[in-house]
Amino acid sequence: MATINENFLKLQAGYLFPEIGRRVREFKAQNPNADVISMGIGDVTQPLAPAVTEAMKKAVDEMAGIETFKGYDDSGIGYEFLRKAIVENDFNARGIELDLDEIFISDGTKCDTGNMQEIFGLDNVIAVTDPVYPVYVDTNVMAGRTGPAAEQGRYEGIVYLPCTAENNFVPGLPRQKVDMIYLCFPNNPTGAVAAKDQLKKWVDYARDNKAIILFDAAYEAFIRDPEIPHSIYEIQGAKEVAIEFRSFSKKAGFTGVRCGFTVVPKQLKAYTKDGQAVDINPIWNRRQCTKFNGVSYITQCGAAAVYSEQGKKQIAQTIDLYMSNAAKIREALTKLGITVFGGTNAPYIWLKTPDGVNSWQFFDTLLNKAKLVGTPGAGFGNAGEGYFRLTAFAQPENVDEAMKRFAKLAGQIK
Amino acid sequence: MATINENFLKLQAGYLFPEIGRRVREFKAQNPNADVISMGIGDVTQPLAPAVTEAMKKAVDEMAGIETFKGYDDSGIGYEFLRKAIVENDFNARGIELDLDEIFISDGTKCDTGNMQEIFGLDNVIAVTDPVYPVYVDTNVMAGRTGPAAEQGRYEGIVYLPCTAENNFVPGLPRQKVDMIYLCFPNNPTGAVAAKDQLKKWVDYARDNKAIILFDAAYEAFIRDPEIPHSIYEIQGAKEVAIEFRSFSKKAGFTGVRCGFTVVPKQLKAYTKDGQAVDINPIWNRRQCTKFNGVSYITQCGAAAVYSEQGKKQIAQTIDLYMSNAAKIREALTKLGITVFGGTNAPYIWLKTPDGVNSWQFFDTLLNKAKLVGTPGAGFGNAGEGYFRLTAFAQPENVDEAMKRFAKLAGQIK
Repeated sequence: MATINENFLKLQAGYLFPEIGRRVREFKAQNPNADVISMGIGDVTQPLAPAVTEAMKKAVDEMAGIETFKGYDDSGIGYEFLRKAIVENDFNARGIELDLDEIFISDGTKCDTGNMQEIFGLDNVIAVTDPVYPVYVDTNVMAGRTGPAAEQGRYEGIVYLPCTAENNFVPGLPRQKVDMIYLCFPNNPTGAVAAKDQLKKWVDYARDNKAIILFDAAYEAFIRDPEIPHSIYEIQGAKEVAIEFRSFSKKAGFTGVRCGFTVVPKQLKAYTKDGQAVDINPIWNRRQCTKFNGVSYITQCGAAAVYSEQGKKQIAQTIDLYMSNAAKIREALTKLGITVFGGTNAPYIWLKTPDGVNSWQFFDTLLNKAKLVGTPGAGFGNAGEGYFRLTAFAQPENVDEAMKRFAKLAGQIK
Repeated sequence: MATINENFLKLQAGYLFPEIGRRVREFKAQNPNADVISMGIGDVTQPLAPAVTEAMKKAVDEMAGIETFKGYDDSGIGYEFLRKAIVENDFNARGIELDLDEIFISDGTKCDTGNMQEIFGLDNVIAVTDPVYPVYVDTNVMAGRTGPAAEQGRYEGIVYLPCTAENNFVPGLPRQKVDMIYLCFPNNPTGAVAAKDQLKKWVDYARDNKAIILFDAAYEAFIRDPEIPHSIYEIQGAKEVAIEFRSFSKKAGFTGVRCGFTVVPKQLKAYTKDGQAVDINPIWNRRQCTKFNGVSYITQCGAAAVYSEQGKKQIAQTIDLYMSNAAKIREALTKLGITVFGGTNAPYIWLKTPDGVNSWQFFDTLLNKAKLVGTPGAGFGNAGEGYFRLTAFAQPENVDEAMKRFAKLAGQIK
């Protein structure tokens, strides 16, 4: 008799974004002419940069010629031309040295942050921030590192680190000992960033406790403040304790193209139960070579073009556009008396729902009365209740219209 | 202290193909001018079909325009236009009915066959053929469904079903009870195919024992014999017990593009430990939506073009070319007195190494004396010892040259 992995049965309801999709589809079915504006799922709206699409077309042409056709990527971890561009631009330029085989090209940060836990023991205690990107939690539930869901949707066995206005949405160190810590800065969903001294506390904690930090830097391209680190490896000693995840999704509009990468430094160790140190880099390499078969050559050529002179310029323009959306949203909502966080070094605006309305209720009100879609804070965890996420990834004219609708709605409610 | 998943430490040596790559690189470093012909890794050599590259370029253009840009695929399981083309062409055309949400588009069969085991309990007894595509075994080792490697590289706890010339490389039913059975037809590496009555035995076994069949049909496009089933769903009752994996890699030259799909019928059940039936389709959907983020829109447009009228014609030509390679190899080796299997409904030729030479020794001889790369049978398992795999995916002129070198080598040895 084939048994199911019963850990899957512990999972709460649907994954957040399909649930939002369901409610929006239902609304649209009932209101077929409604002009719904989405600032919900965190998807980008601007097209790929011309440098990227040119590179992709060239790559398609190569795939059409017998002399230039590319099959499997022998390395299993991505083409060297892309890994080289990444090391030089994202790391050397910030004073960080990395070897090319410490970079693993993948089809996105969701996959990598979801899969990485596989190579670690099931006995590790996991710490996550609350609110949190649901993938970190759900993939550990699936693997069996948690008990069932208990009060307020929290899973037994996971250590939740509340991030609230009080701690500026940067978590303090846990009281109990933890082994694996998921951190995401600039943060999804709160838009918060972590300063060097804040990250240093975590790196020191991990070094003292032989813990591992899983650092999701998918939004680093949106950092404007020169004092804020883009990589956790800007903190001394981080290579001994941290894995970093990066993505082209938001940086270069690759949500529909799928490319990201993960840095697994060679200094990084985990331990057998009897305390022997094991190098993580070759274990992840073995995992990837066995369960993954690389990213499309065409996609990798597009990703490499992100680092070309033209590509950098074009992508900077798009990021400027999104960040000017963010500034507009912050300003408009603040004027309406709504408390907002984030949106200065991140594409997410995290607002406090007015009058203590709960966040799914706020979602439904916004959808039904203003035809606006955002993301309920509670969807990211218990501490997200009473908050709501808006993304700056919309078209500028839609942001203007959305802010008008917000103002109108505020007038109606008052 | 972060612990490692110690199951990874049970894995034997490197993954087969990196090891071949290592030996070939070493040989080339020592013999920089050697004209090495590869019939080893099973990678294709013919470029993408014009219909496919045209569709991809059109898709790149769409990604460059603000009105036509595509971000995340909301469904999480692939665009409907592709799933529809698959259902109609690969299944309806063979009398099989499937719903669109029984098809899950992925970045390849390696990933899907590797990941599928995650949703099943760790207590399931796994059966694999021997020889076997290493991914089925290694991913179960990683998950902890096996003991350590024992004699001849076999893992404790896995049931190996020997496939030899005696049973025509189609395994008989196991004596002990098993819960999950990996079958691959047309087979990699032996090139064997399974007739309907042979598959029916397995389907009946699975129904009788509430077992699950993981059916890898990545090579179905190479079947020439009209009596051989392309899909396990051609067998009555298979939808209740079988998951089927398909790939564009070999069928349409997508090894460097990455696209495949998996069929998870809604009738399919697994069981909780206390015997309650659980639907597998929504569990796999949840797994994919949580740990995977879809395939590039550009890739999916290319894959859909495989089913266009032009695409079908162009792809049939390429498959003809590969199969005429296979026929040439069979003929040439048979003339030299070498016993060959496969190559009539599959792109793999499985030969018996002459004079009982072991298969890695044969690999080294072939590389050093004839500058030919193949795959040692032992790399696929213990019962593969004494066999050797050649692929038909080479350029025709390379096949001619390779067969000349084989003849010369045979003369030297005699």
